[in-house]
Amino acid sequence: MAEGPLAVGVDIGGTKVAAGLVDGSGAVLRRTRRDTPHRSTSPRVVEDTIVSAVEELLGAGSEEVVAVGIGAAGFVAADRATVVFAPHLSWRNEPLRAALGERLAMPIFVDNDANASVWAEHRFGAGRGESHLVMVNLGTGIGGGIVLDGRVVRGRFGIAGEFGHMQVVPDGIRCECGNRGCWEQYASGNALVREARALMSAGSPVVSDLFERVGGDPSELTGPLVTEAARDGDALARELLGEIGRWLGVGMADLAAALDPGTFVIGGGVSAAGELLLGPAREAFRRQLTGRGYRPEATIVAAQLGNEAGLVGAADLARVGAADLAWADAADHASGPAAGDAPPAG
Amino acid sequence: MAEGPLAVGVDIGGTKVAAGLVDGSGAVLRRTRRDTPHRSTSPRVVEDTIVSAVEELLGAGSEEVVAVGIGAAGFVAADRATVVFAPHLSWRNEPLRAALGERLAMPIFVDNDANASVWAEHRFGAGRGESHLVMVNLGTGIGGGIVLDGRVVRGRFGIAGEFGHMQVVPDGIRCECGNRGCWEQYASGNALVREARALMSAGSPVVSDLFERVGGDPSELTGPLVTEAARDGDALARELLGEIGRWLGVGMADLAAALDPGTFVIGGGVSAAGELLLGPAREAFRRQLTGRGYRPEATIVAAQLGNEAGLVGAADLARVGAADLAWADAADHASGPAAGDAPPAG
Repeated sequence: MAEGPLAVGVDIGGTKVAAGLVDGSGAVLRRTRRDTPHRSTSPRVVEDTIVSAVEELLGAGSEEVVAVGIGAAGFVAADRATVVFAPHLSWRNEPLRAALGERLAMPIFVDNDANASVWAEHRFGAGRGESHLVMVNLGTGIGGGIVLDGRVVRGRFGIAGEFGHMQVVPDGIRCECGNRGCWEQYASGNALVREARALMSAGSPVVSDLFERVGGDPSELTGPLVTEAARDGDALARELLGEIGRWLGVGMADLAAALDPGTFVIGGGVSAAGELLLGPAREAFRRQLTGRGYRPEATIVAAQLGNEAGLVGAADLARVGAADLAWADAADHASGPAAGDAPPAG
Repeated sequence: MAEGPLAVGVDIGGTKVAAGLVDGSGAVLRRTRRDTPHRSTSPRVVEDTIVSAVEELLGAGSEEVVAVGIGAAGFVAADRATVVFAPHLSWRNEPLRAALGERLAMPIFVDNDANASVWAEHRFGAGRGESHLVMVNLGTGIGGGIVLDGRVVRGRFGIAGEFGHMQVVPDGIRCECGNRGCWEQYASGNALVREARALMSAGSPVVSDLFERVGGDPSELTGPLVTEAARDGDALARELLGEIGRWLGVGMADLAAALDPGTFVIGGGVSAAGELLLGPAREAFRRQLTGRGYRPEATIVAAQLGNEAGLVGAADLARVGAADLAWADAADHASGPAAGDAPPAG
């Protein structure tokens, strides 16, 4: 039995568009997927893809759906209407809410995908009941989201939570963003694979197990393969995950100094390593936290919602947003005439 | 003519207790000061000091004062009632609201001093009209405060804004907090003086102007003396302030990645250097900001309220807090009987 009003969530990633019909308890009632259109295609093609996925989900049922939420990898303006920049798509200052609103005749809310994920974990996952939550997603890079006092922190321009590009090493490893020493160069799936490949290329004997797993071809190595080797007991793979974990802990201590959350939720592909990652992260965090011993300390836990956090969170943010709109409309109707204004249209 | 309801603000620093009667426009109508009691004295002596200052301010007038706000250097719990730890005082888990409430018969709100300062700048100073504000105070160390969406960010445990202890250099300079490489070891008054003294002790010729200013005694050197020399055109003093400024810019870029404020307000003693500090800070910030060129950028400005920001902000936070209490009381009275509860006492 579905709970509460339903909303559709759409998670637009670098390779896949995942959409789902989500109820008020965060349960996904129906799902569909599309390939993400190539970045060379026009914005209209991406809209078509979203509309087709949403219509497929709506078409099948008779349920009342109150809103559509979009979670997109990229910079989304604080108005939750415009995608300022999306690295994997052709969107540049794309008025996504207006474009989709015309075609879907429903309230549309656009958020950054990591904001959607942290909201999902806050409402239904590992951060349930936690008012102050920071989520760190270790994928190829680092994605981040913040909930403070039970509200998503979007920042003045909508670009909060880009933790991956905090500098942790001056003049450190070069990052795609143009800087050096960004956190995601030390704590991410890419960092894990880069370090393992460097050892392979150097012909280091410590990496023989990984070498065998990829048939002697370093370019075949992936983060999940390193995690698998670590689970099977390979000492070097465990060491590499431990290094990623330690950098994760150091960066979280910086975030705790600034934001003082009650809980850190760790998501993303690398978090599949579980305690092989989180153990070293907790240890480094405790050693690095300023004021340790004189303050309560945040707990560090694994995310619970996995790949679906993005679409579940996008749907729930849209559901809450639509309820706020309805409330504001009702208040306008109620107070309008009393305040001597002309009665609202409709 | 005083505006709106009045509140008393008390700023408890390491050496001085400054108190003021503050109106709704942030104007300080009356002031008084006391020495901060030594950390070896009992909590009761600190309370006596606060009570005597507040009573002096109240005693003179017939105005209605609605609340007392305390801004204290230290960890203040998120309940705004308890000082968890104050480095300069004997307070350890001190129930300050309860203790003062008994003696002053008025609502009491306790905040961290930097939270009070950022609120003052947000309401009446350099951050007026800015919904997303980060304040960085460069004194002997770094103090910080955050306003997001027009609300003070206190964190889950009340300890947000301790930016000074974010690590900017792995295995860097040792910090009093027990870590190495903390931001305040690179961007603060102490850092400025440490670097100048190191050059003096090494007998470097570049430092001859500063050397003369302290009569050849490096222990006489202070931050304001370096700033004075820089204003007078001394090249080395300008270089040192430029270094502090560059580290300030690098750290702000990290904070912008996480929090995306619209404005940074720079306060504290070192900010008296003005553009000699802020120029290099802005330049480093722009060079370091992730996504630069693809996003709007925060502005960086000097604080406007100086030393009084703490007491003005503490007073205004208390005034707002008291209004919220009154509103909640009224709502209880209104909804209580309707909800079938016993009528509230009084």
